[in-house]
Amino acid sequence: MNTLTTLEPLTTKLLEIQRINSAASVLSWDQETYMPAGGGEARAEQIAVLQGLAHQKLVSSEMQTLLSQWIDPATGQAVEHSGAAWDEPSRSLLREVWRDFSRAKKLPSDFVVTLSRECSLAQQVWADAKSKNAFAMFLPNLRTILRLKQEEAQYLGYRYSPYDALLDVYEPGATIAGLRPLFETLKARLVPLLKKITQSNVQIDDSILRHSYDQTPQLEFGRLVLTAMGYDFTRGRLDLSAHPFTTSFHPTDVRVTTRVHEHELQSCLFSCIHEGGHGLYDQGLDQRYFGTPLGDSVSLGIHESQSRLWENCVGRSHAFWRFFYPILQQTFQKQLHGVDIEQFYAAINCVKPSLIRVEADELTYNLHIMLRFEIEQDLVEGKTQPEDLPAIWNQKMQDYLGIIPTSDADGVLQDVHWSFGAFGYFPTYTLGNLYSVQFFEQATREIPHLEDEIAAGRLLVLRRWLEQKIHRWGRMFTPPHLAERVTGSTVSPEPFLNYVEKKYGQLYQL
Amino acid sequence: MNTLTTLEPLTTKLLEIQRINSAASVLSWDQETYMPAGGGEARAEQIAVLQGLAHQKLVSSEMQTLLSQWIDPATGQAVEHSGAAWDEPSRSLLREVWRDFSRAKKLPSDFVVTLSRECSLAQQVWADAKSKNAFAMFLPNLRTILRLKQEEAQYLGYRYSPYDALLDVYEPGATIAGLRPLFETLKARLVPLLKKITQSNVQIDDSILRHSYDQTPQLEFGRLVLTAMGYDFTRGRLDLSAHPFTTSFHPTDVRVTTRVHEHELQSCLFSCIHEGGHGLYDQGLDQRYFGTPLGDSVSLGIHESQSRLWENCVGRSHAFWRFFYPILQQTFQKQLHGVDIEQFYAAINCVKPSLIRVEADELTYNLHIMLRFEIEQDLVEGKTQPEDLPAIWNQKMQDYLGIIPTSDADGVLQDVHWSFGAFGYFPTYTLGNLYSVQFFEQATREIPHLEDEIAAGRLLVLRRWLEQKIHRWGRMFTPPHLAERVTGSTVSPEPFLNYVEKKYGQLYQL
Repeated sequence: MNTLTTLEPLTTKLLEIQRINSAASVLSWDQETYMPAGGGEARAEQIAVLQGLAHQKLVSSEMQTLLSQWIDPATGQAVEHSGAAWDEPSRSLLREVWRDFSRAKKLPSDFVVTLSRECSLAQQVWADAKSKNAFAMFLPNLRTILRLKQEEAQYLGYRYSPYDALLDVYEPGATIAGLRPLFETLKARLVPLLKKITQSNVQIDDSILRHSYDQTPQLEFGRLVLTAMGYDFTRGRLDLSAHPFTTSFHPTDVRVTTRVHEHELQSCLFSCIHEGGHGLYDQGLDQRYFGTPLGDSVSLGIHESQSRLWENCVGRSHAFWRFFYPILQQTFQKQLHGVDIEQFYAAINCVKPSLIRVEADELTYNLHIMLRFEIEQDLVEGKTQPEDLPAIWNQKMQDYLGIIPTSDADGVLQDVHWSFGAFGYFPTYTLGNLYSVQFFEQATREIPHLEDEIAAGRLLVLRRWLEQKIHRWGRMFTPPHLAERVTGSTVSPEPFLNYVEKKYGQLYQL
Repeated sequence: MNTLTTLEPLTTKLLEIQRINSAASVLSWDQETYMPAGGGEARAEQIAVLQGLAHQKLVSSEMQTLLSQWIDPATGQAVEHSGAAWDEPSRSLLREVWRDFSRAKKLPSDFVVTLSRECSLAQQVWADAKSKNAFAMFLPNLRTILRLKQEEAQYLGYRYSPYDALLDVYEPGATIAGLRPLFETLKARLVPLLKKITQSNVQIDDSILRHSYDQTPQLEFGRLVLTAMGYDFTRGRLDLSAHPFTTSFHPTDVRVTTRVHEHELQSCLFSCIHEGGHGLYDQGLDQRYFGTPLGDSVSLGIHESQSRLWENCVGRSHAFWRFFYPILQQTFQKQLHGVDIEQFYAAINCVKPSLIRVEADELTYNLHIMLRFEIEQDLVEGKTQPEDLPAIWNQKMQDYLGIIPTSDADGVLQDVHWSFGAFGYFPTYTLGNLYSVQFFEQATREIPHLEDEIAAGRLLVLRRWLEQKIHRWGRMFTPPHLAERVTGSTVSPEPFLNYVEKKYGQLYQL
């Protein structure tokens, strides 16, 4: 039996590449948190050089020679070596390295450098344009990025749509054909549910969330919840950024960011829990495999399932607040005086079509994604032109959510993703929502008295379960295979739909 | 005439190398400011990979081929190209690239990676050991670093002492033989001056500096002074770190750090001004030449002249405080109530043998350096063993300053330098002191009413002069040549000695 030991010449090379990529991630983190504005252009060049180097090393002839000993280039599968088969970790490692290698091989190094530079620059222009509510300012960069991503899709190749080529980068195996039925099912049951809720006699008042809350205690409370979740601050940090995100340089250095608004208590709170879920995944990866696919997260959909599980299944549950609400009340005595847990629980679960995706409730959230999924398909396929985006955005907001943004900053400019070329990224958010409920229900079945544990503030039992079932495996299994191993089935909208129908049925007395 | 245009294939390569080095600098900055403790080992590996790559690219056969068209390898001088001579910038550029290339060429890439990794690790152990006052904890790392630096000296080659090989890295052309007479002259006049001061009837009371000062307004005042100096915060930042430092990733992103102690008002204040002086140099480099020696600072001695000029010639002058003291008094009304400018000026110029170099007065400072200069020579030459350092340190403190540290944290562990392999660095601090007064006196001659300008808070006129005379030239001239161009003479202890004799003669009524 061949084991990972045989692959050491390969893993040594991969480790070096990963270190270059990690360095680039540190530079990106800094760009979003502490970099002075004037440093943006130089930063774009630095990151581009590193990404170009990492790419060159991955597609080098040395790598090709190494891989061709062990992999059948036609199938991408490991072949017998020295007359013996491979063990499972080695087979998985080879399969995934081949995936990365053969994709990278299709992209010219110059293209990778250009794309990296343009994305880094566009991201900075986007931030500025958003703050000035000036879509026209961002438009030239968006055009460039879109053109480059269309080019990338051509390099990568696809059967039906160039958008499929981009989807696959974030979610291996995902296609328009596979995703569309999921969205159709969601739409078919969510839209009527939403209608029932808006027509319900129950009116939830969430105005307490918009009182004035000091920013420092908000952050401190976020830190407390992160600690309770098992996020390890000796291997992580919490900082501020315009758009909350998680980034990992190694399982020993995984950083999350949040934002704090004086008049939006839920913003810092749920972004801390959300990013904490991502952070736990990255801290839970197996350090021994760092640099190889076995030490890497498996897909953005699975990654998002971790953040959404913590944010929604845990953080928006009644059980969670039975433990944490008294502490929050202690922290904000004046503002939450006389507000009982039922009122608070209702407020944080208030369903209301709203403009901003990241602040959306669990139910309307997927409609925000559907809109983006449709728009970015059309953009990548050339059916929509970037200059028409604001109008199209607003029309779809009207169609799906019944509201129209009053500014592009709250509309088409709200998300950072397109600025860094992440077309095909959004659908993984909905996959994450679906997976999150699947996983959480399985955890509830397997962990004795999980609800009681959560209600007692003992969150580590859940974290350990997730680490054992999901985090530690890295890319050993493909996303559908992993979901099957953990829950007995691949992704399905049913658990999620049943969960929201039950939860909101109770809240709104439907 | 051949110009820089001819050298474009070279400068393009240099730029890529510089971007890798800049990325490594971002990683180091993060290590000292925000990195969680657990991330240290992975960080050391990331930096080592980047420095290894930069080294490989510098010593590549491609680079060799490029350079050999234009440079005589025997002399390192530019030769005629296509039948024409070079203009001055091109000749300087080639001279300095050759210096970097031929030095790098002597070091094996593996050695560079190992040295980088060990330095990054040792620096983290040093910080821990210092905080725990545990020299023994740091000893194994120090041994490793010293051994590597001795090895480096062998690779680089030298005529008289391996220490000379290391000195030259930081200060081109510096040798023990050249430095020793400077230190002898300083010692011969500083020791008697110090004696006269301690025997003077004037006793300066600096206890007001040790009252309780809130940390936030201390930082804000530091920021205000930095702004007045012309340090550009859109191209820079001020952060906290254990050991204040300045780092530059590009003239558009130059960062300084400081530390703040509640009971040491001078600490944050003067480290801000000091690092600000470094920061102005790096922000003042010519962006067009970024990545080439013409866009790089010329030596550590000249760099330090900029920080010491601002810290001492400006920041410890009476004129400076005529403008800034009322603002400081406004900031700390309670603590500075009834303290007039004369008392404050005396307090910040109080001469007193003390344990910590960076807190030392202008006069005893060079004795701290002399001690380090002697110790590190002996270490590198193998005459002293690392385990004997604490005893030797304390003995020399007794001999030169008449006081003995009560702990290694305040003794041999106080400075970060040896932990990152910077043997040969300390003497540049004394060179910086000497140059600083030479430059400042020249500025006083050339800028009309400079003292009045400073007393009116108009510091930009000085910054512009320094930029024109020093910063913008990068490595166009060697350090001695630059000093001659600016002041008419190479480094000399006379201006500095005259300056301190006059200043402290007045203060202590000698």
